[in-house]
Amino acid sequence: MSGPFAHVAIVGLGLIGSSVARAVRACLPQLRVTGYDANADTRRAAAALGFCHDVMDDAASAVAGADLVILAVPVGRMADAAAAIAPALAPGCVISDVGSSKADVAAKLAAALPGHAIVPAHPVAGTENSGPGAGFATLFAGRWCILTPLSDTPAAATTRVDALWTALGARVEVMDAVHHDLVLAVTSHLPHLIAYTIVGTASELEEVTEGEVIKYSAGGFRDFTRIAASDPVMWRDVFLTNRDAVLTMLQRFNEDLTALQAAIRRGDGALLEEWFTRTRAIRRSIIAEGQDDPAPDFGRRH
Amino acid sequence: MSGPFAHVAIVGLGLIGSSVARAVRACLPQLRVTGYDANADTRRAAAALGFCHDVMDDAASAVAGADLVILAVPVGRMADAAAAIAPALAPGCVISDVGSSKADVAAKLAAALPGHAIVPAHPVAGTENSGPGAGFATLFAGRWCILTPLSDTPAAATTRVDALWTALGARVEVMDAVHHDLVLAVTSHLPHLIAYTIVGTASELEEVTEGEVIKYSAGGFRDFTRIAASDPVMWRDVFLTNRDAVLTMLQRFNEDLTALQAAIRRGDGALLEEWFTRTRAIRRSIIAEGQDDPAPDFGRRH
Repeated sequence: MSGPFAHVAIVGLGLIGSSVARAVRACLPQLRVTGYDANADTRRAAAALGFCHDVMDDAASAVAGADLVILAVPVGRMADAAAAIAPALAPGCVISDVGSSKADVAAKLAAALPGHAIVPAHPVAGTENSGPGAGFATLFAGRWCILTPLSDTPAAATTRVDALWTALGARVEVMDAVHHDLVLAVTSHLPHLIAYTIVGTASELEEVTEGEVIKYSAGGFRDFTRIAASDPVMWRDVFLTNRDAVLTMLQRFNEDLTALQAAIRRGDGALLEEWFTRTRAIRRSIIAEGQDDPAPDFGRRH
Repeated sequence: MSGPFAHVAIVGLGLIGSSVARAVRACLPQLRVTGYDANADTRRAAAALGFCHDVMDDAASAVAGADLVILAVPVGRMADAAAAIAPALAPGCVISDVGSSKADVAAKLAAALPGHAIVPAHPVAGTENSGPGAGFATLFAGRWCILTPLSDTPAAATTRVDALWTALGARVEVMDAVHHDLVLAVTSHLPHLIAYTIVGTASELEEVTEGEVIKYSAGGFRDFTRIAASDPVMWRDVFLTNRDAVLTMLQRFNEDLTALQAAIRRGDGALLEEWFTRTRAIRRSIIAEGQDDPAPDFGRRH
């Protein structure tokens, strides 16, 4: 089947863009897929990997004739990417993206592409790896994809983008962009900020060498290094474009950390045990909801 | 082969104690293994699982005739566990443990068991699961086990405990207990404290429901919930017995987090990108050292 669209153009062929292309080819084989990336090496690698029908050397050629364009570039580059494709878009072409912050992106797409239906999207999925070789077709299977249509987005366009992501195996939710940014600030952005922080802290200590940190990382630290290995440019842009929500959540986190710090200082074991018992239940819910692997250690080989 | 000991008694049959028993049975089949746990349900479960030759109903019977006792109880219970076995120990019996903090435990074991060779040990391995059913024989394979002998521990006793852990597949390092506590404060205790904090923070927000946190946890949060699902009593005791090192490391973390917070507030993308690029290299080193799985997402199923 061809699904809700006939020709999708993907601008940005890294982990997410290339995974979308692969998933479309696997799940919607009649849908034509063209691609473009600003980086010539990435274009060459993508062409060799063959997950697009055609990889073009300029963005305008990639989007020509498409009835859906998905921008899969760092959120700080959305405005430029939108401006580059604007003159080449077919009338009625729907515009979407895969960015991790939504209010800022939605505003930039609306400003750059007046007259087009804009359906901002955020598939909540990824890995710590980057680039066109890191993608895979099942990345979105069972994961949530959040759509944040604008007030003037036609409902039919949202329905078509919903149908596309459903066909790729995702579960779709429609949400206000501002609320999305608050929810993701706590479930994604703050965890990344904290992981980046502690991995940096651990690598700069005088009393403990970096070699020791690496050697004894299996006590918990290594879990943080996975997240702190995520794409630096993508994450720089997420923090710059979702600043207020991230700072709000960081303030809550700091209050709680200060409370636990004080409990440790005064030897309040009851408070610590109560807190640690409560957090245990959350993981059971995440596994029950199908959002993580129940195998110990995420199923790492032992 | 029987290895460096003839009869090991394991006091505490949870994740780590039961994994030691299983690893001994698998790697050193001639070595007799007796076990005891203060919890009657745990004793019954352990007996049914069969990883000890005998599970005893009191600690004294379990350690009678043993030439090695391994205390695998929460570090806050080490002193009581040592006092309970003291009258029943054979002369020359070596005492070890598996606790995650070492200076406090070493002092307590030395005070409770004068005249015995004490070789405190910390196998840097584990999962988020607890109890006798959660253990497995290969938990320590390729992981480090740190020994922190006291100044009066006979070198021969340390050598025998080293040989035991080596036989179980671990890589052994000897270290000063105080330095151990500082190293593990950063590679294990601080990561756990931060994970416990953020999971608690996320579950108590007014603006974002717990259901939303669970649903969209694949953006990074779910990694933290694994660590925050670890045993509450064990971790309460770790923070109470390694307080100073944990508070020192937390201070460094707070300084760095404040710096990144300020960079986000003033929109300093260059600082963020530089920081996030540096942390990426640490993960490559951890994988190269064999301390984590190179598969994306730790090898979670997709």
